Amino acid sequence: MDQRARRKIRGNHPSRTETRKRIRQNENSVRELWDNIKHANIRIIGVPEGEERDKGAENLFVKIIEENFPHLRKETDIQVQEAQTAPNKRSPKRPTPRHIIIKMSKIKDKERILKAARERPQVTYKGKPFRLSADFSVETLQARREWHNIFEVLKGKNLQPRILYPSRLSFRMEGEIKSFP
Amino acid sequence: MDQRARRKIRGNHPSRTETRKRIRQNENSVRELWDNIKHANIRIIGVPEGEERDKGAENLFVKIIEENFPHLRKETDIQVQEAQTAPNKRSPKRPTPRHIIIKMSKIKDKERILKAARERPQVTYKGKPFRLSADFSVETLQARREWHNIFEVLKGKNLQPRILYPSRLSFRMEGEIKSFP
Amino acid sequence: MDQRARRKIRGNHPSRTETRKRIRQNENSVRELWDNIKHANIRIIGVPEGEERDKGAENLFVKIIEENFPHLRKETDIQVQEAQTAPNKRSPKRPTPRHIIIKMSKIKDKERILKAARERPQVTYKGKPFRLSADFSVETLQARREWHNIFEVLKGKNLQPRILYPSRLSFRMEGEIKSFP
Repeated sequence: MDQRARRKIRGNHPSRTETRKRIRQNENSVRELWDNIKHANIRIIGVPEGEERDKGAENLFVKIIEENFPHLRKETDIQVQEAQTAPNKRSPKRPTPRHIIIKMSKIKDKERILKAARERPQVTYKGKPFRLSADFSVETLQARREWHNIFEVLKGKNLQPRILYPSRLSFRMEGEIKSFP
Repeated sequence: MDQRARRKIRGNHPSRTETRKRIRQNENSVRELWDNIKHANIRIIGVPEGEERDKGAENLFVKIIEENFPHLRKETDIQVQEAQTAPNKRSPKRPTPRHIIIKMSKIKDKERILKAARERPQVTYKGKPFRLSADFSVETLQARREWHNIFEVLKGKNLQPRILYPSRLSFRMEGEIKSFP
Repeated sequence: MDQRARRKIRGNHPSRTETRKRIRQNENSVRELWDNIKHANIRIIGVPEGEERDKGAENLFVKIIEENFPHLRKETDIQVQEAQTAPNKRSPKRPTPRHIIIKMSKIKDKERILKAARERPQVTYKGKPFRLSADFSVETLQARREWHNIFEVLKGKNLQPRILYPSRLSFRMEGEIKSFP
Protein backbone atom coordinates (compact mmCIF):
# COMPACT_ATOMS: atom_id res chain seq x y z
CA MET A 1 0.00 0.00 0.00
CA ASP A 2 1.47 3.35 -0.98
CA GLN A 3 1.57 6.74 0.71
CA ARG A 4 -1.42 7.99 -1.20
CA ALA A 5 -3.59 5.11 0.01
CA ARG A 6 -2.47 5.74 3.55
CA ARG A 7 -3.37 9.37 3.29
CA LYS A 8 -6.75 8.35 1.93
CA ILE A 9 -7.33 6.12 4.93
CA ARG A 10 -6.33 8.91 7.21
CA GLY A 11 -8.72 11.08 5.20
CA ASN A 12 -11.49 8.87 6.54
CA HIS A 13 -10.68 10.03 10.03
CA PRO A 14 -10.36 13.78 9.66
CA SER A 15 -10.82 14.39 13.37
CA ARG A 16 -7.87 12.37 14.71
CA THR A 17 -5.97 15.56 15.52
CA GLU A 18 -9.17 17.26 16.59
CA THR A 19 -9.93 14.34 18.92
CA ARG A 20 -6.51 14.57 20.56
CA LYS A 21 -6.92 18.32 20.97
CA ARG A 22 -10.30 17.88 22.67
CA ILE A 23 -8.88 15.25 25.01
CA ARG A 24 -6.02 17.60 25.93
CA GLN A 25 -8.41 20.51 26.52
CA ASN A 26 -10.57 18.27 28.67
CA GLU A 27 -7.53 17.18 30.70
CA ASN A 28 -6.55 20.82 31.24
CA SER A 29 -10.06 21.73 32.34
CA VAL A 30 -10.17 18.81 34.79
CA ARG A 31 -6.81 19.88 36.20
CA GLU A 32 -8.10 23.43 36.68
CA LEU A 33 -11.20 22.05 38.41
CA TRP A 34 -9.03 20.12 40.87
CA ASP A 35 -6.87 23.19 41.54
CA ASN A 36 -10.01 25.27 41.99
CA ILE A 37 -11.41 22.81 44.54
CA LYS A 38 -8.07 22.64 46.36
CA HIS A 39 -7.46 26.40 46.18
CA ALA A 40 -8.27 27.09 49.85
CA ASN A 41 -6.47 23.97 51.15
CA ILE A 42 -3.34 23.72 53.27
CA ARG A 43 -1.36 20.48 53.46
CA ILE A 44 0.29 19.51 56.73
CA ILE A 45 3.20 17.20 55.90
CA GLY A 46 5.30 15.24 58.33
CA VAL A 47 3.37 15.34 61.62
CA PRO A 48 3.59 11.79 63.05
CA GLU A 49 0.46 9.62 62.77
CA GLY A 50 -1.52 9.14 65.94
CA GLU A 51 -1.18 12.72 67.12
CA GLU A 52 -3.99 13.99 64.91
CA ARG A 53 -6.16 10.95 65.51
CA ASP A 54 -6.15 11.51 69.25
CA LYS A 55 -7.09 15.15 68.96
CA GLY A 56 -8.79 15.49 65.57
CA ALA A 57 -7.23 17.13 62.55
CA GLU A 58 -8.90 20.49 63.14
CA ASN A 59 -7.69 20.67 66.72
CA LEU A 60 -4.16 19.81 65.59
CA PHE A 61 -4.32 22.70 63.12
CA VAL A 62 -5.37 25.12 65.86
CA LYS A 63 -2.41 23.94 67.97
CA ILE A 64 -0.07 24.51 65.00
CA ILE A 65 -1.36 28.07 64.52
CA GLU A 66 -0.92 28.79 68.24
CA GLU A 67 2.62 27.41 68.32
CA ASN A 68 3.82 29.14 65.15
CA PHE A 69 1.59 32.08 64.29
CA PRO A 70 0.04 33.40 67.52
CA HIS A 71 -0.39 36.85 65.89
CA LEU A 72 -2.67 35.33 63.18
CA ARG A 73 -4.79 33.71 65.88
CA LYS A 74 -5.43 37.10 67.49
CA GLU A 75 -5.54 39.36 64.46
CA THR A 76 -8.13 37.54 62.36
CA ASP A 77 -10.91 35.05 62.77
CA ILE A 78 -9.37 32.23 60.75
CA GLN A 79 -12.07 29.71 59.91
CA VAL A 80 -11.53 26.07 59.03
CA GLN A 81 -14.10 24.68 56.59
CA GLU A 82 -12.97 21.07 56.83
CA ALA A 83 -10.05 19.05 58.21
CA GLN A 84 -9.20 15.58 56.95
CA THR A 85 -6.45 13.03 56.75
CA ALA A 86 -5.46 12.52 53.11
CA PRO A 87 -5.84 8.95 51.83
CA ASN A 88 -2.52 7.20 51.31
CA LYS A 89 -2.94 6.33 47.64
CA ARG A 90 0.39 4.66 47.03
CA SER A 91 0.68 1.97 49.65
CA PRO A 92 -1.15 1.61 52.94
CA LYS A 93 1.99 0.02 54.40
CA ARG A 94 4.27 3.03 53.82
CA PRO A 95 5.82 4.18 57.07
CA THR A 96 5.50 7.90 56.17
CA PRO A 97 2.68 9.70 57.97
CA ARG A 98 -0.28 10.63 55.81
CA HIS A 99 -0.78 14.28 54.96
CA ILE A 100 -3.53 16.27 56.66
CA ILE A 101 -5.66 18.54 54.47
CA ILE A 102 -7.13 21.70 56.00
CA LYS A 103 -9.78 23.40 53.85
CA MET A 104 -9.98 27.06 54.90
CA SER A 105 -13.24 28.98 54.54
CA LYS A 106 -11.38 31.75 52.73
CA ILE A 107 -8.53 31.57 50.23
CA LYS A 108 -7.07 34.69 51.84
CA ASP A 109 -6.60 32.88 55.15
CA LYS A 110 -4.70 30.10 53.39
CA GLU A 111 -2.45 32.66 51.72
CA ARG A 112 -1.85 34.52 54.97
CA ILE A 113 -0.84 31.32 56.78
CA LEU A 114 1.47 30.07 54.01
CA LYS A 115 3.09 33.50 53.75
CA ALA A 116 3.71 33.53 57.52
CA ALA A 117 5.18 30.00 57.24
CA ARG A 118 7.60 31.06 54.47
CA GLU A 119 8.79 33.97 56.62
CA ARG A 120 9.88 31.67 59.46
CA PRO A 121 13.03 29.53 59.36
CA GLN A 122 10.83 26.50 60.13
CA VAL A 123 7.40 25.54 61.47
CA THR A 124 7.16 23.12 64.38
CA TYR A 125 4.61 20.97 66.21
CA LYS A 126 5.58 20.32 69.85
CA GLY A 127 9.03 21.55 68.88
CA LYS A 128 9.48 19.13 65.97
CA PRO A 129 9.73 20.53 62.42
CA PHE A 130 7.18 19.69 59.70
CA ARG A 131 6.02 21.33 56.45
CA LEU A 132 3.02 23.45 55.46
CA SER A 133 2.21 23.56 51.75
CA ALA A 134 -0.44 24.56 49.22
CA ASP A 135 -2.53 21.70 47.83
CA PHE A 136 -2.26 21.14 44.08
CA SER A 137 -3.54 18.53 41.67
CA VAL A 138 -1.09 15.78 40.69
CA GLU A 139 -0.96 17.22 37.17
CA THR A 140 -0.18 20.73 38.38
CA LEU A 141 2.59 19.45 40.65
CA GLN A 142 4.06 17.69 37.62
CA ALA A 143 3.80 20.91 35.55
CA ARG A 144 5.45 22.90 38.33
CA ARG A 145 8.35 20.45 38.46
CA GLU A 146 8.82 20.88 34.72
CA TRP A 147 8.64 24.69 35.00
CA HIS A 148 11.18 24.49 37.80
CA ASN A 149 13.93 23.35 35.39
CA ILE A 150 13.13 26.15 32.96
CA PHE A 151 12.97 28.53 35.94
CA GLU A 152 16.55 27.71 36.86
CA VAL A 153 17.78 28.36 33.30
CA LEU A 154 15.93 31.70 33.12
CA LYS A 155 17.29 32.65 36.54
CA GLY A 156 20.80 31.90 35.35
CA LYS A 157 20.22 34.33 32.49
CA ASN A 158 18.90 36.95 34.92
CA LEU A 159 15.42 37.08 33.34
CA GLN A 160 13.68 37.38 36.74
CA PRO A 161 11.38 34.37 36.37
CA ARG A 162 8.41 33.81 38.73
CA ILE A 163 6.13 30.77 39.09
CA LEU A 164 2.51 31.98 39.26
CA TYR A 165 -0.49 30.19 40.69
CA PRO A 166 -1.02 27.34 39.99
CA SER A 167 1.53 26.50 37.28
CA ARG A 168 2.30 29.48 35.05
CA LEU A 169 5.71 30.98 34.55
CA SER A 170 6.47 34.64 33.97
CA PHE A 171 9.76 36.36 33.16
CA ARG A 172 11.05 39.75 32.09
CA MET A 173 12.44 40.19 28.56
CA GLU A 174 13.38 43.47 26.93
CA GLY A 175 11.49 45.34 29.62
CA GLU A 176 8.27 43.39 29.16
CA ILE A 177 6.77 40.72 31.43
CA LYS A 178 5.87 37.56 29.47
CA SER A 179 4.00 34.58 30.84
CA PHE A 180 3.41 30.89 29.92
CA PRO A 181 1.37 29.00 29.08
CA MET B 1 -4.85 -6.55 2.36
CA ASP B 2 -2.83 -8.82 4.65
CA GLN B 3 -2.07 -8.75 8.36
CA ARG B 4 1.22 -6.98 7.85
CA ALA B 5 -0.43 -4.12 5.95
CA ARG B 6 -3.03 -3.78 8.70
CA ARG B 7 -0.36 -3.63 11.31
CA LYS B 8 1.38 -0.99 9.25
CA ILE B 9 -1.76 1.08 9.14
CA ARG B 10 -2.20 0.69 12.85
CA GLY B 11 1.46 1.66 13.14
CA ASN B 12 0.44 5.07 11.83
CA HIS B 13 -1.71 5.57 14.90
CA PRO B 14 0.53 4.44 17.74
CA SER B 15 -1.52 6.28 20.34
CA ARG B 16 -4.86 4.53 19.86
CA THR B 17 -4.39 2.61 23.11
CA GLU B 18 -2.82 5.65 24.71
CA THR B 19 -5.81 7.77 23.65
CA ARG B 20 -8.28 5.32 25.21
CA LYS B 21 -6.24 5.23 28.39
CA ARG B 22 -6.26 9.03 28.64
CA ILE B 23 -10.02 9.13 28.08
CA ARG B 24 -10.51 6.54 30.84
CA GLN B 25 -8.23 8.44 33.24
CA ASN B 26 -10.13 11.62 32.47
CA GLU B 27 -13.46 9.90 33.14
CA ASN B 28 -12.16 8.62 36.48
CA SER B 29 -10.92 12.07 37.44
CA VAL B 30 -14.27 13.65 36.53
CA ARG B 31 -16.08 11.01 38.61
CA GLU B 32 -13.82 11.77 41.57
CA LEU B 33 -14.52 15.50 41.14
CA TRP B 34 -18.27 14.87 41.30
CA ASP B 35 -17.87 12.68 44.39
CA ASN B 36 -15.67 15.33 45.96
CA ILE B 37 -18.29 18.04 45.32
CA LYS B 38 -21.07 15.79 46.64
CA HIS B 39 -19.04 14.56 49.61
CA ALA B 40 -20.88 16.64 52.22
CA ASN B 41 -24.34 16.06 50.70
CA ILE B 42 -27.29 14.13 52.11
CA ARG B 43 -30.10 12.94 49.84
CA ILE B 44 -33.66 12.94 51.18
CA ILE B 45 -35.60 10.36 49.16
CA GLY B 46 -39.33 9.76 49.25
CA VAL B 47 -40.78 12.79 51.04
CA PRO B 48 -43.92 13.73 49.05
CA GLU B 49 -43.68 16.81 46.78
CA GLY B 50 -45.34 19.94 48.02
CA GLU B 51 -44.25 19.54 51.61
CA GLU B 52 -40.80 20.99 51.03
CA ARG B 53 -42.08 23.66 48.67
CA ASP B 54 -44.40 25.06 51.31
CA LYS B 55 -41.71 25.20 53.96
CA GLY B 56 -38.41 25.32 52.07
CA ALA B 57 -35.98 22.44 51.80
CA GLU B 58 -33.76 23.63 54.64
CA ASN B 59 -36.67 23.96 57.04
CA LEU B 60 -37.85 20.44 56.09
CA PHE B 61 -34.39 19.12 56.93
CA VAL B 62 -34.49 20.78 60.36
CA LYS B 63 -37.89 19.15 61.00
CA ILE B 64 -36.46 15.75 59.98
CA ILE B 65 -33.54 16.13 62.40
CA GLU B 66 -35.90 17.11 65.21
CA GLU B 67 -38.24 14.18 64.57
CA ASN B 68 -35.52 11.53 64.22
CA PHE B 69 -32.29 12.72 65.83
CA PRO B 70 -33.16 15.20 68.59
CA HIS B 71 -29.85 14.37 70.35
CA LEU B 72 -27.86 15.59 67.30
CA ARG B 73 -29.78 18.84 67.35
CA LYS B 74 -28.73 19.53 70.93
CA GLU B 75 -25.25 18.03 70.95
CA THR B 76 -23.75 19.81 67.97
CA ASP B 77 -24.30 22.88 65.87
CA ILE B 78 -25.16 21.16 62.61
CA GLN B 79 -24.86 23.68 59.79
CA VAL B 80 -26.56 23.43 56.41
CA GLN B 81 -24.57 24.99 53.57
CA GLU B 82 -27.28 24.69 50.95
CA ALA B 83 -30.64 22.93 50.47
CA GLN B 84 -32.10 22.23 47.05
CA THR B 85 -34.56 20.07 45.20
CA ALA B 86 -32.72 17.80 42.77
CA PRO B 87 -33.72 18.22 39.11
CA ASN B 88 -35.74 15.31 37.79
CA LYS B 89 -33.50 14.35 34.90
CA ARG B 90 -35.38 11.37 33.61
CA SER B 91 -38.90 12.56 33.01
CA PRO B 92 -40.68 15.61 34.42
CA LYS B 93 -43.92 13.61 34.35
CA ARG B 94 -42.75 10.83 36.69
CA PRO B 95 -45.00 10.57 39.69
CA THR B 96 -42.11 9.88 42.12
CA PRO B 97 -41.17 12.87 44.29
CA ARG B 98 -37.88 14.53 43.44
CA HIS B 99 -34.96 14.05 45.81
CA ILE B 100 -33.86 16.89 48.08
CA ILE B 101 -30.13 17.55 48.38
CA ILE B 102 -28.77 18.98 51.63
CA LYS B 103 -25.18 20.23 51.46
CA MET B 104 -23.74 20.23 54.97
CA SER B 105 -21.01 22.71 55.91
CA LYS B 106 -18.92 19.85 57.29
CA ILE B 107 -18.47 16.29 56.01
CA LYS B 108 -18.41 15.11 59.62
CA ASP B 109 -21.98 16.32 60.17
CA LYS B 110 -23.14 14.36 57.12
CA GLU B 111 -21.42 11.23 58.45
CA ARG B 112 -22.90 11.68 61.92
CA ILE B 113 -26.44 12.02 60.54
CA LEU B 114 -26.17 9.05 58.17
CA LYS B 115 -24.69 6.92 60.96
CA ALA B 116 -27.58 7.85 63.25
CA ALA B 117 -30.03 6.99 60.43
CA ARG B 118 -28.50 3.54 59.95
CA GLU B 119 -28.84 2.85 63.68
CA ARG B 120 -32.62 3.38 63.63
CA PRO B 121 -35.09 0.86 62.21
CA GLN B 122 -36.44 3.65 59.98
CA VAL B 123 -36.49 7.42 59.59
CA THR B 124 -39.83 9.22 59.32
CA TYR B 125 -41.28 12.60 58.39
CA LYS B 126 -44.61 13.29 60.10
CA GLY B 127 -44.69 9.60 60.92
CA LYS B 128 -44.22 8.41 57.31
CA PRO B 129 -41.01 6.53 56.40
CA PHE B 130 -38.53 7.88 53.85
CA ARG B 131 -34.82 7.35 53.11
CA LEU B 132 -31.63 9.31 53.90
CA SER B 133 -28.63 8.54 51.71
CA ALA B 134 -25.17 9.74 50.72
CA ASP B 135 -24.96 11.55 47.37
CA PHE B 136 -22.78 9.90 44.75
CA SER B 137 -22.05 10.51 41.10
CA VAL B 138 -23.97 8.38 38.60
CA GLU B 139 -20.74 6.58 37.73
CA THR B 140 -19.91 5.78 41.34
CA LEU B 141 -23.43 4.44 41.95
CA GLN B 142 -22.92 2.16 38.95
CA ALA B 143 -19.54 1.01 40.31
CA ARG B 144 -21.10 0.34 43.74
CA ARG B 145 -23.82 -1.79 42.15
CA GLU B 146 -21.13 -3.84 40.43
CA TRP B 147 -19.16 -4.22 43.67
CA HIS B 148 -22.37 -5.25 45.41
CA ASN B 149 -22.50 -8.53 43.46
CA ILE B 150 -18.87 -9.32 44.28
CA PHE B 151 -19.59 -8.29 47.87
CA GLU B 152 -22.29 -10.97 48.15
CA VAL B 153 -19.94 -13.67 46.84
CA LEU B 154 -17.16 -12.65 49.25
CA LYS B 155 -19.66 -12.56 52.12
CA GLY B 156 -20.78 -16.09 51.24
CA LYS B 157 -17.16 -17.19 51.59
CA ASN B 158 -16.86 -15.39 54.94
CA LEU B 159 -14.13 -12.99 53.73
CA GLN B 160 -15.63 -10.03 55.69
CA PRO B 161 -16.01 -7.64 52.73
CA ARG B 162 -16.69 -3.91 53.22
CA ILE B 163 -17.60 -1.24 50.67
CA LEU B 164 -15.47 1.84 51.32
CA TYR B 165 -16.12 5.45 50.30
CA PRO B 166 -16.97 6.09 47.52
CA SER B 167 -16.65 2.81 45.62
CA ARG B 168 -13.79 0.69 46.88
CA LEU B 169 -14.10 -2.82 48.23
CA SER B 170 -12.01 -4.33 51.00
CA PHE B 171 -11.92 -7.87 52.36
CA ARG B 172 -9.86 -10.01 54.68
CA MET B 173 -7.72 -12.83 53.24
CA GLU B 174 -5.17 -14.90 55.13
CA GLY B 175 -5.19 -12.36 57.94
CA GLU B 176 -4.54 -9.37 55.67
CA ILE B 177 -6.96 -6.64 54.58
CA LYS B 178 -6.92 -6.19 50.81
CA SER B 179 -8.72 -3.45 48.88
CA PHE B 180 -9.82 -2.73 45.29
CA PRO B 181 -9.43 -0.95 42.99
CA MET C 1 -7.95 -0.13 -2.05
CA ASP C 2 -11.71 -0.63 -2.36
CA GLN C 3 -14.65 0.23 -0.11
CA ARG C 4 -14.73 -3.25 1.39
CA ALA C 5 -11.09 -3.02 2.45
CA ARG C 6 -11.72 0.37 4.00
CA ARG C 7 -14.66 -0.95 5.94
CA LYS C 8 -12.48 -3.80 7.10
CA ILE C 9 -9.90 -1.37 8.39
CA ARG C 10 -12.58 0.61 10.13
CA GLY C 11 -13.80 -2.73 11.50
CA ASN C 12 -10.51 -2.92 13.38
CA HIS C 13 -11.52 0.18 15.31
CA PRO C 14 -15.09 -0.53 16.32
CA SER C 15 -15.04 2.09 19.07
CA ARG C 16 -14.29 5.18 16.98
CA THR C 17 -17.87 6.42 17.40
CA GLU C 18 -17.91 5.15 20.96
CA THR C 19 -14.68 7.06 21.67
CA ARG C 20 -16.12 10.32 20.34
CA LYS C 21 -19.28 9.79 22.38
CA ARG C 22 -17.25 9.27 25.56
CA ILE C 23 -15.21 12.42 24.87
CA ARG C 24 -18.42 14.41 24.37
CA GLN C 25 -19.97 13.02 27.57
CA ASN C 26 -16.79 13.87 29.44
CA GLU C 27 -16.85 17.44 28.06
CA ASN C 28 -20.48 17.84 29.17
CA SER C 29 -19.68 16.52 32.63
CA VAL C 30 -16.72 18.91 32.97
CA ARG C 31 -18.94 21.81 31.87
CA GLU C 32 -21.53 20.86 34.49
CA LEU C 33 -18.79 20.68 37.13
CA TRP C 34 -17.68 24.23 36.29
CA ASP C 35 -21.27 25.49 36.40
CA ASN C 36 -21.77 23.69 39.71
CA ILE C 37 -18.66 25.33 41.19
CA LYS C 38 -19.71 28.74 39.84
CA HIS C 39 -23.35 28.32 40.84
CA ALA C 40 -23.21 30.69 43.83
CA ASN C 41 -21.01 33.28 42.08
CA ILE C 42 -21.86 36.83 41.02
CA ARG C 43 -19.77 38.65 38.43
CA ILE C 44 -19.19 42.40 38.80
CA ILE C 45 -18.46 43.76 35.33
CA GLY C 46 -17.29 47.25 34.48
CA VAL C 47 -16.16 48.76 37.79
CA PRO C 48 -12.90 50.60 37.03
CA GLU C 49 -9.66 48.93 38.16
CA GLY C 50 -8.02 50.38 41.21
CA GLU C 51 -11.22 50.94 43.13
CA GLU C 52 -11.43 47.34 44.34
CA ARG C 53 -7.72 47.08 44.95
CA ASP C 54 -7.76 49.99 47.36
CA LYS C 55 -10.66 48.64 49.35
CA GLY C 56 -10.67 44.90 48.68
CA ALA C 57 -13.18 43.10 46.50
CA GLU C 58 -15.41 42.05 49.39
CA ASN C 59 -15.67 45.59 50.72
CA LEU C 60 -16.53 46.86 47.22
CA PHE C 61 -19.35 44.32 47.06
CA VAL C 62 -20.74 45.51 50.40
CA LYS C 63 -20.68 49.10 49.09
CA ILE C 64 -22.54 47.98 45.94
CA ILE C 65 -25.25 46.26 48.01
CA GLU C 66 -25.64 49.36 50.17
CA GLU C 67 -25.89 51.70 47.19
CA ASN C 68 -28.34 49.57 45.18
CA PHE C 69 -30.14 47.12 47.46
CA PRO C 70 -30.27 48.58 50.97
CA HIS C 71 -33.37 46.46 51.72
CA LEU C 72 -31.38 43.23 51.11
CA ARG C 73 -28.73 44.42 53.51
CA LYS C 74 -31.27 44.79 56.30
CA GLU C 75 -33.64 41.93 55.50
CA THR C 76 -31.17 39.05 55.35
CA ASP C 77 -27.72 38.19 56.51
CA ILE C 78 -26.07 37.94 53.10
CA GLN C 79 -22.76 36.12 53.48
CA VAL C 80 -19.83 36.34 51.09
CA GLN C 81 -17.79 33.14 50.89
CA GLU C 82 -14.99 34.57 48.79
CA ALA C 83 -14.24 37.68 46.71
CA GLN C 84 -11.63 37.74 43.97
CA THR C 85 -10.53 39.58 40.87
CA ALA C 86 -10.92 37.31 37.83
CA PRO C 87 -7.71 36.66 35.89
CA ASN C 88 -7.61 38.43 32.54
CA LYS C 89 -7.08 35.39 30.33
CA ARG C 90 -7.11 37.04 26.95
CA SER C 91 -4.52 39.77 27.12
CA PRO C 92 -2.97 41.42 30.15
CA LYS C 93 -2.74 44.64 28.15
CA ARG C 94 -6.47 45.01 27.50
CA PRO C 95 -7.73 48.32 28.82
CA THR C 96 -11.06 46.82 30.05
CA PRO C 97 -11.23 46.35 33.82
CA ARG C 98 -11.09 42.77 35.03
CA HIS C 99 -14.26 41.20 36.38
CA ILE C 100 -14.68 40.65 40.10
CA ILE C 101 -16.08 37.31 41.24
CA ILE C 102 -18.10 37.16 44.46
CA LYS C 103 -18.80 33.64 45.75
CA MET C 104 -21.85 33.77 48.00
CA SER C 105 -22.25 31.28 50.84
CA LYS C 106 -25.75 30.43 49.61
CA ILE C 107 -27.08 30.12 46.06
CA LYS C 108 -30.31 31.72 47.27
CA ASP C 109 -28.48 34.95 48.14
CA LYS C 110 -27.00 35.09 44.66
CA GLU C 111 -30.45 34.62 43.13
CA ARG C 112 -31.98 37.27 45.38
CA ILE C 113 -29.32 39.83 44.43
CA LEU C 114 -29.49 39.15 40.69
CA LYS C 115 -33.31 39.31 40.79
CA ALA C 116 -33.14 42.67 42.57
CA ALA C 117 -30.62 43.90 39.95
CA ARG C 118 -32.92 42.90 37.07
CA GLU C 119 -35.78 44.82 38.69
CA ARG C 120 -33.84 48.10 38.66
CA PRO C 121 -33.25 50.18 35.53
CA GLN C 122 -29.52 50.03 36.27
CA VAL C 123 -27.05 49.28 39.05
CA THR C 124 -24.41 51.87 39.95
CA TYR C 125 -21.19 52.21 41.93
CA LYS C 126 -20.58 55.78 43.12
CA GLY C 127 -23.25 56.82 40.63
CA LYS C 128 -21.62 55.14 37.62
CA PRO C 129 -23.41 52.21 35.95
CA PHE C 130 -21.92 48.71 35.80
CA ARG C 131 -23.27 45.16 35.37
CA LEU C 132 -24.04 42.29 37.74
CA SER C 133 -24.23 38.85 36.19
CA ALA C 134 -24.31 35.12 36.95
CA ASP C 135 -21.03 33.28 36.44
CA PHE C 136 -21.04 30.52 33.83
CA SER C 137 -18.44 28.28 32.25
CA VAL C 138 -17.11 29.36 28.86
CA GLU C 139 -18.88 26.39 27.27
CA THR C 140 -22.22 27.25 28.85
CA LEU C 141 -21.93 30.88 27.75
CA GLN C 142 -21.35 29.60 24.22
CA ALA C 143 -24.38 27.29 24.48
CA ARG C 144 -26.51 30.18 25.78
CA ARG C 145 -25.48 32.36 22.84
CA GLU C 146 -26.58 29.57 20.49
CA TRP C 147 -29.89 29.15 22.33
CA HIS C 148 -30.36 32.89 22.15
CA ASN C 149 -30.81 32.77 18.35
CA ILE C 150 -33.35 29.95 18.61
CA PHE C 151 -34.99 31.88 21.46
CA GLU C 152 -35.61 34.85 19.17
CA VAL C 153 -37.21 32.63 16.50
CA LEU C 154 -39.47 30.94 19.08
CA LYS C 155 -40.39 34.31 20.54
CA GLY C 156 -41.34 35.55 17.05
CA LYS C 157 -43.72 32.59 16.82
CA ASN C 158 -45.16 33.39 20.25
CA LEU C 159 -44.09 30.06 21.80
CA GLN C 160 -43.13 31.71 25.11
CA PRO C 161 -39.51 30.49 25.25
CA ARG C 162 -37.44 30.69 28.44
CA ILE C 163 -33.74 30.05 29.00
CA LEU C 164 -33.32 27.88 32.11
CA TYR C 165 -30.27 27.48 34.32
CA PRO C 166 -27.60 27.03 33.11
CA SER C 167 -28.27 26.50 29.39
CA ARG C 168 -31.57 24.77 28.75
CA LEU C 169 -34.40 26.16 26.70
CA SER C 170 -38.11 25.65 27.35
CA PHE C 171 -41.13 26.70 25.33
CA ARG C 172 -44.86 26.12 25.24
CA MET C 173 -46.37 24.06 22.39
CA GLU C 174 -49.94 22.81 22.17
CA GLY C 175 -50.45 23.58 25.84
CA GLU C 176 -47.40 21.60 26.98
CA ILE C 177 -44.05 22.91 28.23
CA LYS C 178 -41.15 21.30 26.38
CA SER C 179 -37.48 21.70 27.22
CA PHE C 180 -34.07 21.11 25.60
CA PRO C 181 -31.66 19.53 25.71
